[in-house]
Amino acid sequence: MSTSSNDIKTTVGIIGAGPAGLLLARLLLRAGIESVVIEAKDREYVEQRQRAGILEQGTVDVLREAGAHERMDKEGLVHDGVEFLFNKKRYPLHFPTLTGGRSVMIYAQTEVCKDLISLQLKEGGPLLFETKALGVDGANTPNPSIRFERKDGSTGTIHADYVVACDGYWGVGREAIPKELCQDYERTYPFSWLGILADVPPSNDELIYARHPRGFALLSMRSPTVSRYYLQVPAGTDAKDWSDEQIWDELEKRCETTDGWKVQRGPITQKSVTPMRSFVHEPMAYGSLFLAGDAAHIVPPTGAKGLNLAVGDVVTVARALKHKVQTGSDDLLRAYSETCLQRVWQAERFSYDMTNLLHTDPNATPFEDKLQIARLQRIVSTPSAETDLALAYTGFPL
Amino acid sequence: MSTSSNDIKTTVGIIGAGPAGLLLARLLLRAGIESVVIEAKDREYVEQRQRAGILEQGTVDVLREAGAHERMDKEGLVHDGVEFLFNKKRYPLHFPTLTGGRSVMIYAQTEVCKDLISLQLKEGGPLLFETKALGVDGANTPNPSIRFERKDGSTGTIHADYVVACDGYWGVGREAIPKELCQDYERTYPFSWLGILADVPPSNDELIYARHPRGFALLSMRSPTVSRYYLQVPAGTDAKDWSDEQIWDELEKRCETTDGWKVQRGPITQKSVTPMRSFVHEPMAYGSLFLAGDAAHIVPPTGAKGLNLAVGDVVTVARALKHKVQTGSDDLLRAYSETCLQRVWQAERFSYDMTNLLHTDPNATPFEDKLQIARLQRIVSTPSAETDLALAYTGFPL
Repeated sequence: MSTSSNDIKTTVGIIGAGPAGLLLARLLLRAGIESVVIEAKDREYVEQRQRAGILEQGTVDVLREAGAHERMDKEGLVHDGVEFLFNKKRYPLHFPTLTGGRSVMIYAQTEVCKDLISLQLKEGGPLLFETKALGVDGANTPNPSIRFERKDGSTGTIHADYVVACDGYWGVGREAIPKELCQDYERTYPFSWLGILADVPPSNDELIYARHPRGFALLSMRSPTVSRYYLQVPAGTDAKDWSDEQIWDELEKRCETTDGWKVQRGPITQKSVTPMRSFVHEPMAYGSLFLAGDAAHIVPPTGAKGLNLAVGDVVTVARALKHKVQTGSDDLLRAYSETCLQRVWQAERFSYDMTNLLHTDPNATPFEDKLQIARLQRIVSTPSAETDLALAYTGFPL
Repeated sequence: MSTSSNDIKTTVGIIGAGPAGLLLARLLLRAGIESVVIEAKDREYVEQRQRAGILEQGTVDVLREAGAHERMDKEGLVHDGVEFLFNKKRYPLHFPTLTGGRSVMIYAQTEVCKDLISLQLKEGGPLLFETKALGVDGANTPNPSIRFERKDGSTGTIHADYVVACDGYWGVGREAIPKELCQDYERTYPFSWLGILADVPPSNDELIYARHPRGFALLSMRSPTVSRYYLQVPAGTDAKDWSDEQIWDELEKRCETTDGWKVQRGPITQKSVTPMRSFVHEPMAYGSLFLAGDAAHIVPPTGAKGLNLAVGDVVTVARALKHKVQTGSDDLLRAYSETCLQRVWQAERFSYDMTNLLHTDPNATPFEDKLQIARLQRIVSTPSAETDLALAYTGFPL
């Protein structure tokens, strides 16, 4: 294999060095399967873009199996539960009790990416930054290829046996599947999340999901000294329209409790707005091309399923490729799309339900508002409902 | 107490001789509390109008405690589960396993009414048919009264210590609460149920809830020889527009399975269309006036909560009245509205969810259709979700 030239041969061509593409390369490496990863952005960008921060138990397990767990196990914060806050009261959910020992870990996607990049550069196959995929050719043949363009303007091709597109919602991978075979499923929401990073210790040990007539708020964290907080805002909101003081005031209002507990304020170091969208592209495979992560599906962030779903996809495709290499059978590869979509639709359902459970819809009727409270009350008062939520939140074994 | 005149004195005046009013009179009788029931319709009408047919475990228990169980225990059909049918497959849910021994009973509301009427006329206080309530006066005083009109046009008054309005959605009881204290919560659905009674043994031992792209179907029963089937139809449908053959054809299509099982046809003896509505009136009490059953809340029929909710209300008011009589404390009476509304909103939530789980909404997006299937798959494949549904379906202890 040569990667200095612009004509590259490998077994698996991977588009995108987000957590999906990076983890896939790592899993393939450990299975003795050669791969090349290309990424349009530079390394710094990939390591800095703020995304998810909650790893399901299954994701943690996979990162450990992949040997990418050293820093995570040192710095990650194991969380045994979350709290729901509504009608000014806090209701803790304790995951291990409800799920037979499962929990989640707070460890930011940026950190997962840093760890995987550093491992890949040290031990793995080529990882080419600033190398933009232009398109996938021959997806339905045994010799698919990825056309790419380097930062210097030169173009080239990766010739592979398989292509996995981990290139996100805006990626080119999906476009290689003929339109007439595809169906897109979509929903947009009338609200977004205004997210902040603040240099202040988290106000609560556990995450707080707050439902308030003024809108949803989420109190999360990045580390013992950095808080990650979110406010539901109308779709189309510009983060610049919110002063730091307004943000703290609003967090305080939405998280008001009768027990006097309060959100602690601190310097805000970053502000951004995340739109909310549900999206599924079917099928997730076509011939030798496989879609993974945001390339095939988006969930609204409530419930933190996005990154974990991507991990589920790449575990599934890595397992299928290993099976093919070891046994010659492409059964698992052919089942890939259907296998993933089962999990994807369950995550879509959960993310949609969590979103509707906690956000105030400006178009909701008083009847729907009351249903929302009844739903929350059901969850915090009924073991079966509480367990069902905890199982979906911590995720199923991969 | 005299009821031959049109000036009647009693402890509890009850408007409406549906299952709520009749059961309340029975419970009060057993508690040694005097009551009078008035009903606008004649006895035959009350005993014939087709309504619900599924009694929760708690309702069965209450009817037994009230000594109104003799025929029910002989003729009622205990059901240990239901089946969901979607994507041409049937999925059984076994209630006792999921709920620690709870089940439901098929015994039509008409039969419950017949049993309670016969008991009341034999053992109970006055039960006056063709006596229409015109209004409730002094609801907020210790001496409320019910103005009524007899069939002969004469009018009169029931002077009571308490009035319980079990007079349904169209009743006058609710109107005695000042508008400014009230809030109504409401939702209508774009579909109705076309229901039939047919002289043919039920095609399946257990109820079948079928979700089909053509719409929902429910296969229920009245007895070992009489089937009770329903089809989702557009709101505003006239039952006359459906021929018997069309109904059977449609039931067959919506209940198609891959295992060759089929709906058995027979002579249809009754056809009617039930609109679907969610409705809650708050508060459910005002001074000496208490609302029970459909007078305060309506649920869509999916999940069979209507009759059972009414039973929950009258058990609660009977308990509170007994407490007052025995201890002098009106704590439970004052808590009545809030106590009932807890249960009511949980039933509203469940009925809404069951309705949306199984009906095809003409306005649903492809995304929402997929979510619906994912939701069904979750229920039939995850013990916590299955348990949660079974617990809500069989109902909570009263």
